Amino acid sequence: MPTIMKTLNRISRCQSLFRNERLQHDGILSCHHTFVLVICRNPGSSQDELAREICINKSTVTRTLNYLEEKGYITRRADSEDKRRILVYPTEKMLAVLPEVRAIAREWNELISKDIPEDELSVFYSVLSRMELSAKAAVECRGDEDR
Amino acid sequence: MPTIMKTLNRISRCQSLFRNERLQHDGILSCHHTFVLVICRNPGSSQDELAREICINKSTVTRTLNYLEEKGYITRRADSEDKRRILVYPTEKMLAVLPEVRAIAREWNELISKDIPEDELSVFYSVLSRMELSAKAAVECRGDEDR
Repeated sequence: MPTIMKTLNRISRCQSLFRNERLQHDGILSCHHTFVLVICRNPGSSQDELAREICINKSTVTRTLNYLEEKGYITRRADSEDKRRILVYPTEKMLAVLPEVRAIAREWNELISKDIPEDELSVFYSVLSRMELSAKAAVECRGDEDR
Repeated sequence: MPTIMKTLNRISRCQSLFRNERLQHDGILSCHHTFVLVICRNPGSSQDELAREICINKSTVTRTLNYLEEKGYITRRADSEDKRRILVYPTEKMLAVLPEVRAIAREWNELISKDIPEDELSVFYSVLSRMELSAKAAVECRGDEDR
């Protein structure tokens, strides 16, 4: 069997090209789409929670949030009960982009799964979910302090 | 059904964290792993061929190759029959990294597919391959001049 990740990563990169062609907003690039979706779904998350939810390291979260704040897409406030926790909120500007980001994500999901029978899709998604659990466990075991 | 891409992209990002923890070579980051694998598999490919094979845009290819050349991992030569085609070759330094990059990729593939029955994996891979075809077709149709 060919390597799963080679194919999986290609689909992910094609999606990135697709998004870049579709979304034209001031400074929002394909690599920010996940941030838009996650921040709007969980307003008031801490930076650490965003890193865990998105599965990237903290330094990338910090760098991306600095950029999004500079462009006016988010605000950050210290948690009133624990000043070290920095909470992230979407601005009106980010909320205005959200419907388009969601529509592009939906369109891509439909595009890649069209013509695939429901029973095969069901097995596919079941396997994919188990792979996600293994993937997250593998990284959390080894990289907690860096996440 | 939850969105396929959300799960798929999380697995991809976990792999990136895994690689970053594992591979320690001068300047080689997780985002370069695919370049290492593809350039070593296809020495003498043009920059445009690499963009198509990896499924990223030409400007990202150019930027990454500039970096890898600066770090001594590749050399670039104009095609003797068509001076506008720039061909990319791995150096000894890149070839020395290849076994480790391959081993990490193999380890990750095994890690995420362990405990999944062979018949389910077979359906999974069949669906994933069809998704890849749809993904590539969608991007190629719309973005030829930019790829």
